[in-house]
Amino acid sequence: MKLLVVTSNPHKADEIRSYLGGRIEVEDVRLECPECRHDDVGEIARYKAEFAWERLGKPLIVDDTAFCIDSLSGFPGPYAAYVFDKIGNEGILRLTEGKGRGAHFQTAIAYADSNGIRVFRGILNGRIVEARGREGFGYDPIFELNGRTLAEIPLEEKSRISHRALALRELHDWLLVEADL
Amino acid sequence: MKLLVVTSNPHKADEIRSYLGGRIEVEDVRLECPECRHDDVGEIARYKAEFAWERLGKPLIVDDTAFCIDSLSGFPGPYAAYVFDKIGNEGILRLTEGKGRGAHFQTAIAYADSNGIRVFRGILNGRIVEARGREGFGYDPIFELNGRTLAEIPLEEKSRISHRALALRELHDWLLVEADL
Repeated sequence: MKLLVVTSNPHKADEIRSYLGGRIEVEDVRLECPECRHDDVGEIARYKAEFAWERLGKPLIVDDTAFCIDSLSGFPGPYAAYVFDKIGNEGILRLTEGKGRGAHFQTAIAYADSNGIRVFRGILNGRIVEARGREGFGYDPIFELNGRTLAEIPLEEKSRISHRALALRELHDWLLVEADL
Repeated sequence: MKLLVVTSNPHKADEIRSYLGGRIEVEDVRLECPECRHDDVGEIARYKAEFAWERLGKPLIVDDTAFCIDSLSGFPGPYAAYVFDKIGNEGILRLTEGKGRGAHFQTAIAYADSNGIRVFRGILNGRIVEARGREGFGYDPIFELNGRTLAEIPLEEKSRISHRALALRELHDWLLVEADL
């Protein structure tokens, strides 16, 4: 039972291996996938998985993550990485000052095999706060849940509760029962 | 001499027709093109033109426009329309408060024929100001050049001096001399 992880980040395959390990062999593949512009990260992952399946023809997953702020109509959404690179957490704090601060992360993992595409999602709800903590990366210092920011939660704990972990758990449970690998 | 304009906006073809008119027949075609994520709007247009050429096989153009703020590392760049939809001019003013306000629009038009792809660009430099004026749309009220915002410039004048007009002029001059239509 072998699963290709389409990514340009080798750490991603390691992380997925540690979740799926045991009966599922994980191998990373580099493949540039064009992206559709879509507000829904699940549709973006699905599109990339279709592209990769046409070229590779073996069971594979592609993932994508969005960061969505309710009072900004879901901004920055699937452009989370681009927006962080340009305006950082300081920009997000400026934009949300005096506004509602509810936010969530969402990871979508699209799995492709000869039966088609299936999308698994994990969502982590929280709110925007002034930056605290030194762990993690990106928006972690300004995203709080249950009194701590993601940057105040040890990496080992974060990797059990994160949006990414939730999506991987869905995938894992389904793979073991249903997948035609 | 016939040129396809790949767009989902029928007004775009009308506008291009009014620039290129005369010897060049312009016809609009609807085709969903996947987009690559790239900071350079020229590369985005080039990628879409390649995709469209593979499917249509006739001389065509595709365009894309970016809005870039210097002090925000070029944000919102090619995501100008998405970002406007989410945070509007109020968001841009928050992000640039107390920062450098230099900005520019850039339109890239990618032309494809059997000889390959060629990209034409038009750039309009200005700066971010508090919103003024009632013409135009999008970022026009907060983009000032030579003492007026784009929303204070009559549409007929704007359509002669805009980034889009500059790119179309480049295309027009080259088409008449060089293109293998």
